[in-house]
Formats: sequence, structure tokens, C-alpha cells
Amino acid sequence: MAKQEDQFKKVLSHAKEYGYVFQSSEIYDGLSAVYDYAQNGVELKKNIREYWWKAMVQMHENIVGIDASILMHPTTWKASGHVDAFNDPLIDNKDSKKRYRADVLVEDYCAKIEAKIDKEVAKAEKRFGEAFNKEEFVSTNPRVLGYHEKIKSILTRMAKSLENEDLADVKALIEELEIADPLTGSKNWTDVKQFNLMFGTQIGASAENSMQVYLRPETAQGIFVNFLNVQKTGRMKIPFGIAQTGKAFRNEIVARQFIFRMREFEQMEMQFFVKPGTQKEWYEKWKETRMRWHLSLGMGAENYRFHDHEKLAHYADAASDIEFKFPFGFKELEGIHSRTDFDLKAHEEFSGKKLQYFDHEENKSYVPYVVETSIGLDRMFLAVFSRALQEEELDNNTTRTVLKLPAVLAPYKAAILPLVKKDGLPEIAREIMDDLKWDFNVFYDEKDAVGKRYRRQDAAGTPFCITVDHETLTDHSVTVRDRDTMEQKRVAISELKELIRAAVDMKTWLQKI
Amino acid sequence: MAKQEDQFKKVLSHAKEYGYVFQSSEIYDGLSAVYDYAQNGVELKKNIREYWWKAMVQMHENIVGIDASILMHPTTWKASGHVDAFNDPLIDNKDSKKRYRADVLVEDYCAKIEAKIDKEVAKAEKRFGEAFNKEEFVSTNPRVLGYHEKIKSILTRMAKSLENEDLADVKALIEELEIADPLTGSKNWTDVKQFNLMFGTQIGASAENSMQVYLRPETAQGIFVNFLNVQKTGRMKIPFGIAQTGKAFRNEIVARQFIFRMREFEQMEMQFFVKPGTQKEWYEKWKETRMRWHLSLGMGAENYRFHDHEKLAHYADAASDIEFKFPFGFKELEGIHSRTDFDLKAHEEFSGKKLQYFDHEENKSYVPYVVETSIGLDRMFLAVFSRALQEEELDNNTTRTVLKLPAVLAPYKAAILPLVKKDGLPEIAREIMDDLKWDFNVFYDEKDAVGKRYRRQDAAGTPFCITVDHETLTDHSVTVRDRDTMEQKRVAISELKELIRAAVDMKTWLQKI
Repeated sequence: MAKQEDQFKKVLSHAKEYGYVFQSSEIYDGLSAVYDYAQNGVELKKNIREYWWKAMVQMHENIVGIDASILMHPTTWKASGHVDAFNDPLIDNKDSKKRYRADVLVEDYCAKIEAKIDKEVAKAEKRFGEAFNKEEFVSTNPRVLGYHEKIKSILTRMAKSLENEDLADVKALIEELEIADPLTGSKNWTDVKQFNLMFGTQIGASAENSMQVYLRPETAQGIFVNFLNVQKTGRMKIPFGIAQTGKAFRNEIVARQFIFRMREFEQMEMQFFVKPGTQKEWYEKWKETRMRWHLSLGMGAENYRFHDHEKLAHYADAASDIEFKFPFGFKELEGIHSRTDFDLKAHEEFSGKKLQYFDHEENKSYVPYVVETSIGLDRMFLAVFSRALQEEELDNNTTRTVLKLPAVLAPYKAAILPLVKKDGLPEIAREIMDDLKWDFNVFYDEKDAVGKRYRRQDAAGTPFCITVDHETLTDHSVTVRDRDTMEQKRVAISELKELIRAAVDMKTWLQKI
Repeated sequence: MAKQEDQFKKVLSHAKEYGYVFQSSEIYDGLSAVYDYAQNGVELKKNIREYWWKAMVQMHENIVGIDASILMHPTTWKASGHVDAFNDPLIDNKDSKKRYRADVLVEDYCAKIEAKIDKEVAKAEKRFGEAFNKEEFVSTNPRVLGYHEKIKSILTRMAKSLENEDLADVKALIEELEIADPLTGSKNWTDVKQFNLMFGTQIGASAENSMQVYLRPETAQGIFVNFLNVQKTGRMKIPFGIAQTGKAFRNEIVARQFIFRMREFEQMEMQFFVKPGTQKEWYEKWKETRMRWHLSLGMGAENYRFHDHEKLAHYADAASDIEFKFPFGFKELEGIHSRTDFDLKAHEEFSGKKLQYFDHEENKSYVPYVVETSIGLDRMFLAVFSRALQEEELDNNTTRTVLKLPAVLAPYKAAILPLVKKDGLPEIAREIMDDLKWDFNVFYDEKDAVGKRYRRQDAAGTPFCITVDHETLTDHSVTVRDRDTMEQKRVAISELKELIRAAVDMKTWLQKI
């Protein structure tokens, strides 16, 4: 655990130091759970978005995109269920006036019992030394078993109460467990209340004309309300998909883990409209297709796994997450959901408009079923960035920090480095730069010794360093250094473009999917 | 005027019919002044954004991008002046309870006087026939001169009152002119009040922890608050720029003209940081550079003009608009502003942090001056789309509707059309499609006669139609039809990629700037 936290701290500081992610409004001490993408981060984010878009839209004849607005008619969120049910259970401490998520208080209480188990284990390990068998110990020691039982019974009761919206019982549980305000120790609690996670605002100026609207908490509904317009004007035939990337907003009470859970975040979603009855088949197909997209980036198959949901949301008949091994463990990166006809039917009901597809083959109209693939762009950023960040022991007993981003996603594809700042080398370096920049995002650096510049580019994630030296003047060649292998080879200037293209071209990577 | 309105209506209906722009939440009867980009619109918008980004960031060694959040610390907007001064003067009618922009009521009143002038002109024209000289008439006719004088005196007084924040005089003006509620005729007005255009929302859940924040009304401040972090982590040397594209929000009272003025819109901004004293030179350079960017798209130099501001905003020491000839006349498309050190100094003051650059050459620190280029992505979309939409009389006395988008911006670069749906032609067409799709966004269509399909692609803006016919089976060639000239030529399948690339490659277009 300590190692994980350590690694995660490195991710945070590296993200800031190398211009990937800054705290939002940092000069004003930041805005909680909101972040800005810096000069390198914006390019990595753009490249991830584009890799997704090309794979999903450009490569699929039957998938088109849209870009719906963040502000939508408020009835959208009545129909989707967000106005009534997109809530967190909150509780206030009457003495400290602090507010908490009731379920998190209970979970934190259980985490403390977990810690006691860890202590028992550590004690026993110390006592028994090498003879200690942890698995046997935790499955037979009465004290440990008792702790486990207690945790299970607490969490089961809470889950049931939340499901039944029995908030009084959640409060009762907190009181029975004598959970105290972690800041003040007070046990003087209010009732538990549901708090809606949507950000609200007013549109229009006058009291009469103004309307309560929301910042969308998900992009999916922008696709559903446009479904029929896209189908008709695009003459789409089922099965077909509508893809979208864009911002969504959730007023999270407990936002943790850097850009993993933010109040303002970006989604990349695709809703695939299918004939009712065929949804299972498409659900399986999209699970597989999306996993192949992830694996194409070469970040290690062992870092991904499916997590099929046992408990389904009210709108789903099947759901699975693609989980990724983040520095803090396996967590959801993408969701594939078979959403049935829940959303379209709800919009039919609330709008009074038919949202049906006329199937010429079947000669009848129906409300399509929907299979959704939904990935958080910021999470994907964190997955790529945290996995890429590595410290390597070198032969000479030094270490180097290297950001082994998939080359297709790297902000800069190459850095052009004149060995020295004289003898005409900068001029040649700039000529090379001026030629390459039409095709690739390239970086120029002439400051400090070249070894130091290599390290900077390693840490920034640039796949190639191109060094112009005195030999270049006569042999029209340069030294190309590979970020990952640190191998250097001599390459004719005229061959640079093809060398870089072969490594970074999106087309090449898409073909791996 | 009637012709302009007519043309504008065509733009609106074409945008919907061909999948470019839909009204937001249309099934719920829409949300005023908010729009969604449909399947073709999203691609055009993406291409405009990318063309700007490449021209501004990738092509300039000393310009980098960022992607700051929409939600920022609220003090940002105190410092920028938006909390105190980003207002519209509003007035309520006490009888109808309707609210209006006071300045718009007065402007509409003046527009009615204009209409009277038009009437006088029309009358005189009828009377004098061919001998009528309009210029002479309007500059000598006493009645017309009187009308002009009246308009001028009204608008001058209003401008002065607004500048002096003398809202009582704005109300007095409305009463003196006996302006009535356009809906009910009532002249029973409230006082004029300032209304802030920022959308507000609450972040955080508890009364104690929650904070009033705003949806950013401009993207520029996201750059200013990050200025020093970018400069330091990116080791940027002055002069350098920071570019950004992203959503901004303004609660406009009177939002008109389709996507020209929306409540939710997207900006493409670049802030260029320079040594104090050099700003005029950079201001001129950026005016010229940005104009070249526009002209590179080949939409006609006669459709652009500069409008240098005489009256400057409080933060500017020079400002100019690039105006474009929209269907409703020349209007602002982009602004180039010399913003001085106003913003950075304000953020220094409000944050208590130094936002200074240490100039190694001068061996001293200073707050840089800023030259801004700011273009509305949605306006640019409207400019391109409305200018591209044309009706052409053909030789055979029919007309065709064609969307002559610059090929680099067109959503689909080519449509692949098998002449008939049999004899193996669709199979070859799909083979071609499967080869081209890695490089370009391409469209497949096999429905209806090929002539009809050509017309559809003309109207959708696709530069090339590639027709597979029976000869293709033996000569491995296809017919390529050019959208603009309607010329058809026979091209070997193996040469298609290069033909399309030459026309649509962003690199080629960027080289025209």
C-alpha cells in the first residue's frame, strides 16, 4: 500500500512538473476536484480523444458523431431519472456543521476494522516468524473471523437500506456503531438526506422567463434526444451508433484520487441502436471490440480485466466494466452497458413524441435497444500517464525517469537538438524542424548538455530525440535516439519523416485493433 | 434585406436537413439560443478546430496549448471584472411582467425610424423613376435628415448614459420616447437594472462548504491564471503564446441569429505574452497573421474586413475585429486585442502572487503585455457554412444546391458509390472504402440512381464522388466527380488516395497561410 501511494505521489508531481496537469485556479489555491490540462497534457488528451474518435467513428461506416450542448432542456433529466434519483445520502454533524456522505462514514468505519485485522496479522507474523501462514491465519483466527463478519453485516445492512431508500436506518446504523465526526468527535447527527449531484443554474433573466437547468451529468442523454434526427437526416439503418465526446459535471461530495473522479470531466460515449432481442450479441461484441482498442496501445494485457456487474442499474439488462490497474488498484476505466429501451421510452413518455425506428426489412416500427460504451477521457489519461511513468535503473548505477507513452499518443513526436549552439548546427536543426513540423508536433531544444536534454525528453515522453552534430554538416545524417531503448542510430535527414511516421502514425496503431 | 433573410432561412433549413445543426433538446421544444452539432456538423466543427490548432500551436515553436476547466475559482471573475461589470441593462414592464434589454428597446425604436427613412426613399423613387438619385435624396431631403439627426441624438445619449452607469437616464429616455412593451403596448416600466450575464452555480454540498462559482464567460482567464505555471514548466521565453479552445457561457437576454450568438458557445483563443513596449508591433503582426489564416480557406477576400475599434475596452490599448460578410451583413468573426498587462496585474492583486516573467536578456522581472486573438468557433462554422451554401443554375435549366466547403474542412472527403447494387460492384466499392477509410473520413452510398446520389453529396459538401461501374471490373479505374466543377474523370483505383490527399490534406492548406 505504501508503495502504491508513493507511486501515485510521483504521478501527481510529475504531471505538474512536466506540464501535464495543473490544479485548477492554482493561484487562488485551487478549486476542489477540478483540474486543468497543461501544455503537454492538452496534447495527450487531444490524441487520446482522436484515437477513440477515429476508431469508433471513422472506422465504422454505421457510426456517426454528434456534439450536443452541455445545457439541455430540464425535462431531459426528469425523463432520465436524474432529477429524482441521482443522489448521494448526506448527513450533517449538528455541532461541527460539517457535512459527510453517510455511506462513506460507514465505509470508513469498516476500513478501521480492516486495519485491526491487518494489525492482528502483523502481530501473528511477528510471533510465528517464517512458519506464519497468512491465509490459514485469517481463515481460522476467531478474532479475525469476527471482524470479517462484522464488516459484512454492516455493509449488507447499509446496501439494503440505501436500496430501499430507508435513510432512517442508515442514520440508525451510524448511531449504533457510534460513528463520530472524524474532525471533532461529536456524535450529534442530523437525519440522512438525499443530495442531488447535478449542478443547477438559471437560464434567462426574468423571474417569469427563467428556467432551472442543469449542467449535464452525462453525455448519453444528448445522444438519445437526438436519436431520431440523426437517424432520419443521416438515413441510418439499424444497427447503427452515435458517438460523442464532451464535458459532464457532477457535484461530488467526496472527490478523490486526482483526475480519477472530478467534478468536471470528459466522457467518450457511443450509443449503439439495435433490434430488440439482438442486444446480448452486440453487448458481447462491443465488450470485445473495446478491449481490443485498449490492448492496441500496448500497455500490458495484465493491466486490464472485465468486471461483469451482478447488480444492474434500473435501465440495464447487462453491464460490464473494463477495469484498469491504476496506481491505487484495479478500478473502472470504461463501462459497456446494455441499456435496453429504457431511455428512448422515457423520452417518448416525457416528450409525447414517438422515438421509433421503421425497420423496412421487418416492415414495422419499434423503439430500438441500446448498447453503450462509455469511457472517461480523464481516467484514460490517468491510466496512460500513470502506466507510462517509470523509473529505470541504468547500467551505470544511475536511474532515469521515463514516460513511456504509446508513441501515437505522445504530445511531441520528436525533439530536435543541435549538439552545440554554434557552428551552424542550430540552423540545420531548425531546417529539419521546419520540414517536420508540417507532419508532426515537434520540439526544439538547444539549452544544456545533450545528455541532460535527453533526460528531459525521456521524462516528457517524447519518443525520438534527433541530434544534429558536426558530422551532420558533411554526411547529412543525424543521430536518432529511441526513448524506450535509449539506442542511438545514424539516420539520413531525408529518411527522418518516414522513420517517425512508422512509429507514430495513428493509422498504423488503428490497424492493431 | 428580404433576399438576405431568405438566404439565412435557407442556411437554417439546410443545416438541419443535412445533419449539420439541430436545435438543442428539440423533442422538448428546444432550449433558447442553444444548439447541437449533428453528424456532419460535428466533423466540420472538429476540422475547423483542428485547422486553427495546427496553424496556431503546431506551426509555432513558441506557442503551446492548454485546456483549462470551465469551473474556476470565483475570485478569477472578481479580478477580471466580470463579477462587477459583465452586465446588461434590463427593464421590466410592470403590467406584462416581461423583461427586456433597455438598450435593445431603444435600438429597436431607432430601427423603426430607419424604416420610415426607407419608406420615404421608396416613395421618392416611385415618384422620380429613373431620374432618382438615392444618395442625393437622403443627404438633402429635410425629413430624412431630421430622422437621421433624431437617431443620432438618441443613440449618443444612450451610449453616454450607459458609460456613466446613469441607468435612471436610460429609463428617462425610454419614457420620453414613449417606448411601449412590444407585446402589450404598456408603457408602465420599472427602473433599469444591471443584470450579470454569468451563469452561477453552487459547488460543494453543505451550506458551509459550498461556494458560488460561475460557468466561465470567456476562456481567456484560464490562460492568465496558468500563465506562470506554463512559462516555468514549459521553459518558455518571451515572446510566447498560450492557445486554448473550449466552451464558454453567457446568459444572453436577446440571443438571435442562429449559432451566431449562443448561450453556450466555443472559443478559440491565443494569448501572446510580450515585452512591454513591443505590443503594438505584435498586435499588427497578429492582425495580419490571423487574416492570412482566414484567406487561406479561399472563401473570398471581399468577404473579410478589419474594423479597428475607436472606443476601447478598459483593458485594451488597441483592438480590431476581423469582420465577415454573414447572410445578415458584416459582423465580428474574430477579435485581435492588445490587452496590456491589465489581466495579469489584476490576478497579482487578487491572488497576492507575483505573475512576473524574469527576462534574462534584460536581467529584470516584469509583468508581460498580452496580445490576444479570439475567434468564435461557432461563428466560424456559420461563416464557412453560410458562404459555402450555393444554388447554381445548370445548363439544362435546373438548379443544384451545393455546399462548397473548403475541402480541408469537409466532413466526408469522398463518397464511394457503386453504380448499381449488383454484379459485384458493391463489393469493389467496399474494398475501395476499406482502403481509403484509414486515411480519410469516407462515405458509402448505394441507394437511388447515381445522379440523385451526386446531388445528395453536393448538398452535404463532399468534395469527391467515386463511382464504381461495370468497366471498373476490367480497367480497375473509377469515375471521380468533382463537387465544385461537376467534372468527371477516369482515375485508376491505385491513384485515388493521392488524388484525395492532394485536395484535402491539412498540410497543403496550412502552407497557403
